[in-house]
Amino acid sequence: MTAAIIAVGNELLSGLSIETNSHFLINKLKIAGISTSSVSIVGDDPDSIVRALNTEVANDVDVVLVTGGLGPTHDDVTMKTAADYFGSEIIHSEEAYKRIQKLFSDRGIASLSKINRDQALVPEKAELIPNLNGTAQGLKFSKENRKYFFMPGVPVEMEKMFDDFILPELQKQSRQSITNIIIHTTGVPESVLFQKIEHWINKNQELSISILPRFPEVDISVTKTSDIRYGKSDVESAVSELSELLGDDIFGYDDDTLESVIAQQLVMHRLTIATAESCTGGLIANRLTDISGSSEYFKQGIICYSNQSKIEQLGVSEKTLLAHGAVSREAALEMARNVRQIAKADIGLSTTGIAGPTGGSPEKPLGTVYIGLSMNGRDDIFHFQYNRDRLSNKFFFSQMALNQLRLTLKGIDG
Amino acid sequence: MTAAIIAVGNELLSGLSIETNSHFLINKLKIAGISTSSVSIVGDDPDSIVRALNTEVANDVDVVLVTGGLGPTHDDVTMKTAADYFGSEIIHSEEAYKRIQKLFSDRGIASLSKINRDQALVPEKAELIPNLNGTAQGLKFSKENRKYFFMPGVPVEMEKMFDDFILPELQKQSRQSITNIIIHTTGVPESVLFQKIEHWINKNQELSISILPRFPEVDISVTKTSDIRYGKSDVESAVSELSELLGDDIFGYDDDTLESVIAQQLVMHRLTIATAESCTGGLIANRLTDISGSSEYFKQGIICYSNQSKIEQLGVSEKTLLAHGAVSREAALEMARNVRQIAKADIGLSTTGIAGPTGGSPEKPLGTVYIGLSMNGRDDIFHFQYNRDRLSNKFFFSQMALNQLRLTLKGIDG
Repeated sequence: MTAAIIAVGNELLSGLSIETNSHFLINKLKIAGISTSSVSIVGDDPDSIVRALNTEVANDVDVVLVTGGLGPTHDDVTMKTAADYFGSEIIHSEEAYKRIQKLFSDRGIASLSKINRDQALVPEKAELIPNLNGTAQGLKFSKENRKYFFMPGVPVEMEKMFDDFILPELQKQSRQSITNIIIHTTGVPESVLFQKIEHWINKNQELSISILPRFPEVDISVTKTSDIRYGKSDVESAVSELSELLGDDIFGYDDDTLESVIAQQLVMHRLTIATAESCTGGLIANRLTDISGSSEYFKQGIICYSNQSKIEQLGVSEKTLLAHGAVSREAALEMARNVRQIAKADIGLSTTGIAGPTGGSPEKPLGTVYIGLSMNGRDDIFHFQYNRDRLSNKFFFSQMALNQLRLTLKGIDG
Repeated sequence: MTAAIIAVGNELLSGLSIETNSHFLINKLKIAGISTSSVSIVGDDPDSIVRALNTEVANDVDVVLVTGGLGPTHDDVTMKTAADYFGSEIIHSEEAYKRIQKLFSDRGIASLSKINRDQALVPEKAELIPNLNGTAQGLKFSKENRKYFFMPGVPVEMEKMFDDFILPELQKQSRQSITNIIIHTTGVPESVLFQKIEHWINKNQELSISILPRFPEVDISVTKTSDIRYGKSDVESAVSELSELLGDDIFGYDDDTLESVIAQQLVMHRLTIATAESCTGGLIANRLTDISGSSEYFKQGIICYSNQSKIEQLGVSEKTLLAHGAVSREAALEMARNVRQIAKADIGLSTTGIAGPTGGSPEKPLGTVYIGLSMNGRDDIFHFQYNRDRLSNKFFFSQMALNQLRLTLKGIDG
């Protein structure tokens, strides 16, 4: 089975927004064993939309997925264009109206404005697809053995609609299945990783293997297409071989994130943590608390940007700051130790460094970071040097701190 | 003038690579006053490429930009397809050969492999465009007043080729220029915003206006195409009318971010800030310190997830927590006041709420947040209720806190 994606929106052609929905859809279609034969981006203009639809008829794809232009504002023309294209009247749908009412009452809004009520006007011939995150209804049409799905362009609305209602239908129709396992690594450059696994790649020619750098992580994607009746055994055995090859470079698989893996480790060992951040400015605490249930292990964070706050709040000694500077092994160590004691936590994690773009020196260049990790009487300091832009540096620093935490927690298991 | 972009490459349809060249080209074309009417992504397959070229002939664009598939490997079919499409022989080009030789000798490689020598085989009818960063030559064809440029898909090669050789030619030909202003708003839902400016949109038919929701912000893009000899006066007058209509809903223009606007306000008033975050887990501090130079105004942050840390670190009274709970006006107020005093800052900003997906109650449903803002003896508490997923909730809470800070700082000016 093949699919075509048509993304509608002037903003996608104006340079303001980057079209990202197609990337999501391509990957999801892959899971259903459906390959994407083309992606078109066109403006909010009926003629362009119709030309794109006709091109996909000529390409003879099985499924056409259209995103965008279903909203309530004047430049949203997709719904009207679809109605004309399939020769359908536009009518008021009670089903859609009730859904919109429920959405607003769930948000505590009792009455609908005209613009929201108008979202219940839909093509008579369309099968409606619920939008659980917004007011624009999804539309399904069938014509000459070809299915057309029209979805909103807002990613959070489109993704939920596709996952809940469209993907299951497509999976049932396509009898192919693609087994895909994603392996997540961090702390190893792409080129080093490639050298480590080159032999393994050559050995597994029947698998489709990709190395995907997603700063500051590198993923390895392993894919196998097969008839739906066969299992995933050969992918799994190749992946477990890879896991042995890479060892601690791998932090997780598929939906794992570095934060979720650390959360599992902390909960399993019943350990609590506190953070003392300088250069990462709260990013580590923010990432740790992105996980639901983090109040079980995250006790407290202190963001000490100034020397004054390092001294007064964290009890870092003035002598240390004078002798070694705020960006130093010694300061990182005291920060980690002290925040652990202050918060009565099992683990103290600290960062001090230079995120840039100013503030570097020959001895401590931009991108220098010291990470302190204090746990059960054992104190470690890690040092990294990495410089790109300020936001990348902050993220890289937080990644290295969390990764060292993961590796240390892994050590407890052994 | 209008342009169409065709990106060629199986990897762009496999879900592994994201197509980014079109975004670069759209923005560069805009500078030359050329609007992009469509983007197509097709596989490395002659039929698909030809169909995409024919569609752009039907669309009657002035310029067709094709990227990708010019390389030396077996799946690169764009050059051969272009030669066939324009009825051209493929010949050895001495000009291309010398350029490839120079590229390799500059890199210290004396002899060319066959695969590299073959990159000098090009369509006879094409005008060659130098590739300063690689071996694949760019190709230019003209047919029926339409220009076709074929460029490599590797961004670093394509971008240099486009900037150095193609953009100057297009700029000379187009005598238009496009003026674009982006207006950033936050705190107002898209539908409410639309109602406020509907009349203004209808009045300014000669402008191209888009409303772009970028949770939790909504942008308004105002664009005007004009002859290169005229200025941007009419866009600016329309925008200043819009600014009066929307007032405080607008936080900035073009490259402004909420964080950068607040940074300017704090620096201008020489004010310092400290944060006490519960439900936002460090996100507000992280956003404030995303700005280079934030150490000038950001003094300290405390992330107090547990009641214990609220009491011990922030001095929130146990009585308050018992009587009203940690998620309450009273707790938010004490948190903001106390962190300001502890950090000796001018401003204290606090959040306490329920990010979910668990922990809600009938009186305090998921998505409830209280924001405390303490400044110069004046204390304010703000309350919002918004529930999506945990990460969106955290971001929304941080956005509302920063927006209230912005509005309060704006009040000082008046």
